[in-house]
Amino acid sequence: MTATESVPAPVLVVGAGLLGTSIGLALRRRSVDVALFDVSAEHTRIATALGAANLPADTEPGLVVVAVPPDHLGAVIAAHLERGAAVVTDVGSVKSAPLAQAAALAGKDALSRYVGGHPLAGSERSGPFAASAALFDGRPWALTPHERSAPEAVAAVAALARACGATPVTLDPEQHDEAVARTSHLPHLLAALAAGRLADAPASHLALTGQGLRDVTRIAAGDPSLWQQIVTANAPAVGALLRQVRDDLDRLLDAVQAVDRGSIGTLLDRGVAGTVRLPGKHGGPARADTALYVAVPDHPGELARLLADAGEIGVNVEDLHIDHDPDRPVGLVELTVAEDRVEHLQTSLEGRGWTTHR
Amino acid sequence: MTATESVPAPVLVVGAGLLGTSIGLALRRRSVDVALFDVSAEHTRIATALGAANLPADTEPGLVVVAVPPDHLGAVIAAHLERGAAVVTDVGSVKSAPLAQAAALAGKDALSRYVGGHPLAGSERSGPFAASAALFDGRPWALTPHERSAPEAVAAVAALARACGATPVTLDPEQHDEAVARTSHLPHLLAALAAGRLADAPASHLALTGQGLRDVTRIAAGDPSLWQQIVTANAPAVGALLRQVRDDLDRLLDAVQAVDRGSIGTLLDRGVAGTVRLPGKHGGPARADTALYVAVPDHPGELARLLADAGEIGVNVEDLHIDHDPDRPVGLVELTVAEDRVEHLQTSLEGRGWTTHR
Repeated sequence: MTATESVPAPVLVVGAGLLGTSIGLALRRRSVDVALFDVSAEHTRIATALGAANLPADTEPGLVVVAVPPDHLGAVIAAHLERGAAVVTDVGSVKSAPLAQAAALAGKDALSRYVGGHPLAGSERSGPFAASAALFDGRPWALTPHERSAPEAVAAVAALARACGATPVTLDPEQHDEAVARTSHLPHLLAALAAGRLADAPASHLALTGQGLRDVTRIAAGDPSLWQQIVTANAPAVGALLRQVRDDLDRLLDAVQAVDRGSIGTLLDRGVAGTVRLPGKHGGPARADTALYVAVPDHPGELARLLADAGEIGVNVEDLHIDHDPDRPVGLVELTVAEDRVEHLQTSLEGRGWTTHR
Repeated sequence: MTATESVPAPVLVVGAGLLGTSIGLALRRRSVDVALFDVSAEHTRIATALGAANLPADTEPGLVVVAVPPDHLGAVIAAHLERGAAVVTDVGSVKSAPLAQAAALAGKDALSRYVGGHPLAGSERSGPFAASAALFDGRPWALTPHERSAPEAVAAVAALARACGATPVTLDPEQHDEAVARTSHLPHLLAALAAGRLADAPASHLALTGQGLRDVTRIAAGDPSLWQQIVTANAPAVGALLRQVRDDLDRLLDAVQAVDRGSIGTLLDRGVAGTVRLPGKHGGPARADTALYVAVPDHPGELARLLADAGEIGVNVEDLHIDHDPDRPVGLVELTVAEDRVEHLQTSLEGRGWTTHR
């Protein structure tokens, strides 16, 4: 980290939930001075005990990080802009609405010290006990400067993201909100609609489930009250995408009712084209990876033995998924490896007695 | 397997694709005699060379397994019912349409020898080279007898499913089609709609992606021409669910535009309720599992070392997911373990030098 990229310490973290406490822990890992405040004295006490802060809450900060629920972002950002001369950022999932609220409440000069932020990291759990110094390691951290943001303020927030182990990605607030509407909020809502169709399904239907259904619906288990705030705060961008999806759905419904294969195929092709655009690991372009399936007895140590064998064979496992079988003590493990390594891995694993298939 | 549950050999498998070849391999593993036929002489040759058959294609069969593309099921089932006295089944993803087609083409007496089947197993790949004797191990295999199916025919197809390592689940054809419309076809189409919104997204939007998006869209990469046939063949059940989803989507869109939090929350709550109904591993009731996150360097052997440690600690890993970080050589591994074991695992792993969080 260069001198121009240092975090303006001390850092005051406002809100000792999962994100605020994790930021404190990540900064303390780098020996950056941190003060912490939460409206809940218990949250403050727990987060401090975990090591997320080393200074009292009334310390004069160089940087304020607002990590409160979406509904309160604008007011808390404005209050801290008006209170002192510190740079102020936040970690909310939506960026335009809190900016507009803060702009309405704070003076124009003060607003130049505000730069929005959004680390793309989280957990199904919440609260300070769920926090981790490693939560942001290697994740994207969106920076959303507005027209009046001062360059020093932008540099300070970029330094914060890097000090937490994340990679800053700069977008304007509207771009950001359109991006996460597409990559996060819409998928969440469609997962909820797919899962919602299971809520009153006959029990007999649920006997016929596989991994695909689990993958599609997993995120629908997230906290409804948090997601309600996120969707509401990003209503224009989410609404625009929902209208596009409704048009697609109307076309699909017409095509299914008319048994119009061409139109069904067009929508399926479009889905395939979308999956191809997802970035590969390490943010690079999508790579040619292949799956190898291995039958693994379902008791401690067997999975380790498989991966130890893969390690000795010298093939890096890019991803791994365990698909438990519904009625016997054997799991099917899907190993994702580079396409040019799969044949070597398969032959070598078979040679070591594993049952595999591709 | 009892005498009443033996497979009426020899078995003729019609269609040497992924499923047909895998059935041949699974039966040969049990020393059941198998003949194989495919309209492609090359597929027949490859599947036979792989060991999926031991008898010539013109052998008189006791059981015929029709494993051809959805469009051809009805005609091929009827042809084999008319040709001899064997029990006939198929492995198609949809059951009512092929039954109606076969009933229109075959005599009523002959139809008593037909029982539909659908193993819930597959792969992104297709063709005989993708086949495996272990493909059906522990998977559900739907049996869909119709009103005139003879009990001996039902027993023969149940025996086939068990001989292939699967667990028979009996439903009537309409129930089956409604079940898979809900648990497979609708989720596939919603995944395609979510992925479709990425197809022409600005590149900047794709910088802000996480694991949730990958999970929701994964199955949308499946073969469009196969899925087009499946959706078409199950048009009534899929159409009925799509209309329900469109109603939900209209309500959601109205709620987002009106910033009506209560209605958004209702739809999100319904999604949570749906995820809770998904069966747990081994077909049992959903269990209380918890995720533990561990930072793992991204090179061969490290994942094995982690799992060897987990094995020595004596905690069974129920599921595992690798979330690669976009910009550094460290992956975050999500271990799913029983709730009452997670604290012991976390403490023990930390004691062995791993960085973990929950």
